[in-house]
Amino acid sequence: MAVGVPTGAVLLLIDLQKAIDHPSWGKRNNPEAENNAARLLALWRANGWPIIHVRHDSAAPDSHYRPGQPGHEFKPEVKPQTGETVLAKRTNSAFIGTDLEKRLRDGGHKALVVAGVITNNSVEATVRMAGNLGFNTYLVSDACFTFGRADLKGHFHSAEEIHDVSLANLHGEYCTVIDTLTVLGAV
Amino acid sequence: MAVGVPTGAVLLLIDLQKAIDHPSWGKRNNPEAENNAARLLALWRANGWPIIHVRHDSAAPDSHYRPGQPGHEFKPEVKPQTGETVLAKRTNSAFIGTDLEKRLRDGGHKALVVAGVITNNSVEATVRMAGNLGFNTYLVSDACFTFGRADLKGHFHSAEEIHDVSLANLHGEYCTVIDTLTVLGAV
Repeated sequence: MAVGVPTGAVLLLIDLQKAIDHPSWGKRNNPEAENNAARLLALWRANGWPIIHVRHDSAAPDSHYRPGQPGHEFKPEVKPQTGETVLAKRTNSAFIGTDLEKRLRDGGHKALVVAGVITNNSVEATVRMAGNLGFNTYLVSDACFTFGRADLKGHFHSAEEIHDVSLANLHGEYCTVIDTLTVLGAV
Repeated sequence: MAVGVPTGAVLLLIDLQKAIDHPSWGKRNNPEAENNAARLLALWRANGWPIIHVRHDSAAPDSHYRPGQPGHEFKPEVKPQTGETVLAKRTNSAFIGTDLEKRLRDGGHKALVVAGVITNNSVEATVRMAGNLGFNTYLVSDACFTFGRADLKGHFHSAEEIHDVSLANLHGEYCTVIDTLTVLGAV
């Protein structure tokens, strides 16, 4: 496996559900992110390494991520196979209101490889906690994406800029940022 | 008290220690942040509302935040008074490796007003968890500050930009961003 990513690390795919394709989100970056996540998933499956599909079960009445909505379904590229672990969450961090930490510790898992959406929200909240909880955490930069947004002063930041600032906040402090090819390359 | 900030909310001051003045950090924003934090502190003291001073006890050998270093001391503007709660942490989030959540729940505290440093690191990590744990969280925008940094592509983002993107990530999702005057104004 790639230099620096321990063999047998848990692949944690976050919120890759159809809701993320809704046009209301605006313009995204990393159009290849789902394909990259699928390549990671294929590698993990081929090796029998642990996989956790994190699914967002929104409680917000107007959310496309609400159970029962078409948007709640996993995206086809990364749809869980029978027998794979699906972990439901209701807030941003996959560690809050779930048994994720216990599950990882009970399984003796010390390393995580994270991909999914959106970089600066559920992915970042989860990676910050993973790092602070002491897990050796890798974030796959091109298997995540986000959207542009205005700040509170009304200045618009592009998806790429929001994504890049998020990775800069995380790398070296909470995780190691790595790309898909680097993960795949050393296998 | 200010519209929307419940009376008796806990004031949580994060990592306001002398280490943050070290020139190695680079150029900061919000030069009035310590004075604003001190104004909040004075208001909380005058009303006998709960205050928690979060202190970073770094385990990194080269950190100015390491206990025993001059940088480990609280900044004079916000130095705890005898009897005030000081909560030591060793990682970014004040909720990890500490009894902060238990302390807040045992005390029946449901609302937090957060200030300190740096916006996009320990402040953001703490506010994300506070919101996800269900606390009604307010972040005082001009009583926090940060520094500029380069992203992983080598593009430099100013302190103001890093601060603004951090607040945009947090507001409405994990907390309500508010300014010092608004907090003070309704008293």
